[in-house]
Amino acid sequence: MAAALTAHDLIAKHRPTLDQALEAIRTRAYWSPHPEHPKAYGENGSLDMAAGKAAFDALLGTRIDLGQPGTDGWVGGEVSPYGLALGVEYPHADVDVLLPAMKAGQRDWRDAGAEIRAVVCVEILKRISDRTHEFAHAVMHTSGQAFMMAFQAGGPHAQDRGLEAVAYAYVEQVRTPDTAEWTKPQGKKDPLALTKAFTAVPRGIALMIGCNTFPTWNGYPGLFASLATGNAVLVKPHPRAVLPLALTVQVAREVLAEAGFDPNLVALAAERPGEGIAKTLAVRPEIRIIDYTGSTAFGDWLEANARQAQVYTEKAGVNTVLVESTGNYKGMLSNLAFSLSLYSGQMCTTPQNLLIPRDGIRTEDGPRSFDEVVADLARAVDGLLGDDARANALLGAIVNPDVKARLEAAAGLGEVALASREVANPDFPEAVVRTPVIVKLDGAKPDDEAAYMNECFGPVSFAVAMDSAADAVSLLRRTVRDKGAMTVGAYTVDSEVEQAVQDVCLEEAAQLSLNLTGGVYVNQTAAFSDFHGSGGNPAANAALCDGAFVASRFRVVEVRREA
Amino acid sequence: MAAALTAHDLIAKHRPTLDQALEAIRTRAYWSPHPEHPKAYGENGSLDMAAGKAAFDALLGTRIDLGQPGTDGWVGGEVSPYGLALGVEYPHADVDVLLPAMKAGQRDWRDAGAEIRAVVCVEILKRISDRTHEFAHAVMHTSGQAFMMAFQAGGPHAQDRGLEAVAYAYVEQVRTPDTAEWTKPQGKKDPLALTKAFTAVPRGIALMIGCNTFPTWNGYPGLFASLATGNAVLVKPHPRAVLPLALTVQVAREVLAEAGFDPNLVALAAERPGEGIAKTLAVRPEIRIIDYTGSTAFGDWLEANARQAQVYTEKAGVNTVLVESTGNYKGMLSNLAFSLSLYSGQMCTTPQNLLIPRDGIRTEDGPRSFDEVVADLARAVDGLLGDDARANALLGAIVNPDVKARLEAAAGLGEVALASREVANPDFPEAVVRTPVIVKLDGAKPDDEAAYMNECFGPVSFAVAMDSAADAVSLLRRTVRDKGAMTVGAYTVDSEVEQAVQDVCLEEAAQLSLNLTGGVYVNQTAAFSDFHGSGGNPAANAALCDGAFVASRFRVVEVRREA
Repeated sequence: MAAALTAHDLIAKHRPTLDQALEAIRTRAYWSPHPEHPKAYGENGSLDMAAGKAAFDALLGTRIDLGQPGTDGWVGGEVSPYGLALGVEYPHADVDVLLPAMKAGQRDWRDAGAEIRAVVCVEILKRISDRTHEFAHAVMHTSGQAFMMAFQAGGPHAQDRGLEAVAYAYVEQVRTPDTAEWTKPQGKKDPLALTKAFTAVPRGIALMIGCNTFPTWNGYPGLFASLATGNAVLVKPHPRAVLPLALTVQVAREVLAEAGFDPNLVALAAERPGEGIAKTLAVRPEIRIIDYTGSTAFGDWLEANARQAQVYTEKAGVNTVLVESTGNYKGMLSNLAFSLSLYSGQMCTTPQNLLIPRDGIRTEDGPRSFDEVVADLARAVDGLLGDDARANALLGAIVNPDVKARLEAAAGLGEVALASREVANPDFPEAVVRTPVIVKLDGAKPDDEAAYMNECFGPVSFAVAMDSAADAVSLLRRTVRDKGAMTVGAYTVDSEVEQAVQDVCLEEAAQLSLNLTGGVYVNQTAAFSDFHGSGGNPAANAALCDGAFVASRFRVVEVRREA
Repeated sequence: MAAALTAHDLIAKHRPTLDQALEAIRTRAYWSPHPEHPKAYGENGSLDMAAGKAAFDALLGTRIDLGQPGTDGWVGGEVSPYGLALGVEYPHADVDVLLPAMKAGQRDWRDAGAEIRAVVCVEILKRISDRTHEFAHAVMHTSGQAFMMAFQAGGPHAQDRGLEAVAYAYVEQVRTPDTAEWTKPQGKKDPLALTKAFTAVPRGIALMIGCNTFPTWNGYPGLFASLATGNAVLVKPHPRAVLPLALTVQVAREVLAEAGFDPNLVALAAERPGEGIAKTLAVRPEIRIIDYTGSTAFGDWLEANARQAQVYTEKAGVNTVLVESTGNYKGMLSNLAFSLSLYSGQMCTTPQNLLIPRDGIRTEDGPRSFDEVVADLARAVDGLLGDDARANALLGAIVNPDVKARLEAAAGLGEVALASREVANPDFPEAVVRTPVIVKLDGAKPDDEAAYMNECFGPVSFAVAMDSAADAVSLLRRTVRDKGAMTVGAYTVDSEVEQAVQDVCLEEAAQLSLNLTGGVYVNQTAAFSDFHGSGGNPAANAALCDGAFVASRFRVVEVRREA
């Protein structure tokens, strides 16, 4: 490698990080190399808050020319949920030119081996980390996340998930040695002896289809898992959230080139409005891996039609929290209020259905009726979001008009326990900011089932009155089995109810958070420790991140000869 | 567990074997706990040759009652390729009764954990190993393999593949710890602290669809991978090769019951003639994993239609050996002759197309023309099979009339370089025993392509004249890419040709054997060291055995709570 970044230097620089990541996924204790605090940036080449903002501002109204082969025009047009027109232009690709060009560098990338690929990926993540403040604005102004969330979830947490995927990919590839001497005794005759060489070979080109709400967090696992296993990666961002992924592609191409590899191993496929390029790309024979986060309809279409590819999907689900009893009523309410409010409920992990016995629940201070619990929760949300500045910092902006329409329609689905209200954002007057709505439904009424048994993505929750805890457990099971769930929560001090909920989650493969009353929320998962989704219920066919997420992205080819 | 086999005893007995298997799949050096020599059996409870034969004879004409729920009749009717009607009857299942019954024991099996499941599986394999001589006859009289091959491939080698799958399944499940303490610093505030529990949960019921030619060798990997990862396994044998798998199911049920588990975790689904039960079972919602070895048509159907399941298929392929030059002409000829003859070419790994430059090849004794090479190979096969006793021992019997018909038709496809001949089997006069046919084709003639570009399963090989080594490499690539290949072989002393063949195999994901001239053959792979197939070309979507083969058979469910 006659390159600015030598293999030796990259290994020296990043192998310790890789080793720590490998240890973390084994112990699943807390670990992250990416600081969560905005003030932690600004030294050793990273951009501080002001520099990050300036870097973002400098991008506005520009053309990001990635130097990709087959660029046949320029597309763009993102408008921030906060009102700002980004005015950034991206290359539009003639895929008949781009896809073959992406294959040109695959051989060198394959032959580099798992360790070099891993440290190149870590270098990409390091450079992204240094620009976390810049990425934070890019994520904020495409997803509508509030700044602090865009900073953390779009920055260090997304980088963590990317690094986690690199670690899984690395360890999976080195489970088989590069070479082996095989000597089989033959009694008195000479033994049979073979020399064997094993090479991890990529599938081909991977297509990563990004989403609007978490372009980096949901995108990085697939991107880095595919790249680290030797594949080229074509990044197809959501048309409303191109910038964070375009910057990611730009950094990846820079690092690849500096390390002596073909930058076309990573490329961007931005599209014209209404072009629907994902559907065309997904069935191209060159595309052998697809990662997708988004609607169930398109996820199911991909699984059914992109038969030439390994398809990893995260789709819609209906997340449930079962509320049966608690020993910390106030903690439960504040924890739930935060979960419902964070990013206006626009997370695939936000609870939707709160199943509560119609006879009420037990608390440390005595019983609370169904109506009381719901009213107390409504008050807790109100309290949390009473101050407009705090509300803005927590809610962010409504990402698109569909979410707003669903929110408005939800009020007609039942008795409104907590009405959504508009919050003014003094910095961004055009931002659509809304507090969550909580609607009461009855689990025994068939008419209400149409509402609570379908995902209503956005700041909408249903407080569903159940005949009993057993009924709630039964509805939980049916919901996970039929609709899928990224998360399940439960509040109970009854060991039988706890066991019943655990049984459902183990049998229907759903991730369970029990009795959270403090600063960890059911809708948050931490890389290296928590699994995001299970891959075992209809909400997703893969989990972030595990062996199954990486093992099929490459194959091992053996060449054997007599020793 | 109040059971005859305690967890403690099973771990004490089998953990060392499991540990050795784990070490073997990591180093890929030679290892096997299952003796290959018939005389190694007869002590420590294993059946010797005579006892194994007697045990097999005692099975003939009997009913194997597995005690399965939902048994609604009895089916059977296997006739050995050696002429013997086995007269064994098996339970026919009402799957609406059997499938629910198979789920009843899943919870205990899941909760037992990865290590207990592994050692229970090893105990099953140990008892099968003790009955290897009995299984050898069962495999011989269903597959048509000659005794020694049925003994080795159907016995120790199949058991090795099963144990290898258990080892992969075990290590995959324990990559995530059972519990973790996660403590995240919060500056001056108290840290966030969670206790997390992780459980490997099964997909559901696995369906293993057996094949006629290698009921145990091809069946055990999927069966044991699924069982060891907590799934129940329904074994659907090929109607002509039920006995070896019925015995396997019987042993598994015995061991499960003795270890305190529900024997219905493993069950048999034998079928009436023409019932086509695989197609019905494959799309049942309870079936979440399918392992299949057989035709491309049905494999493709499974992949397209059994969408509720993880589908692992081994289908047809066209195996190529490229012959360009050699430094050991005689060794090459005898090695190839053996490969073409073993089990009458009825292996998914047998070479079919021998690509030879029409201008001939270089050898250590000077050049040989195309015609000379083919004639010398024909003579080598003739020499190998000249003695009828040795021919019978190597060829076995033709497994079914389709293979015989293809063999007879092959002679009409081109110039016959080596005619197939009938071999009489004095022990089994009804056995159809045939030597291989070698037919000359021309790689430049479009008319010949229809022959050499399709799998002609059985003792049929094509010596294909190629314009150049480069043409041969190019045809090799096209064959693997379009038709798939379980194996590729090459003979060359030219480093450029060797590199070109390696490039094709790495890029098209095919397993390559180079310049084999001794006692290892392109069509044989050894568990714990060689991969069987790559899972990356059309011949198979999985390899035996690797992380990808086991990782998606279970999911990890996390339950987290505040510490």
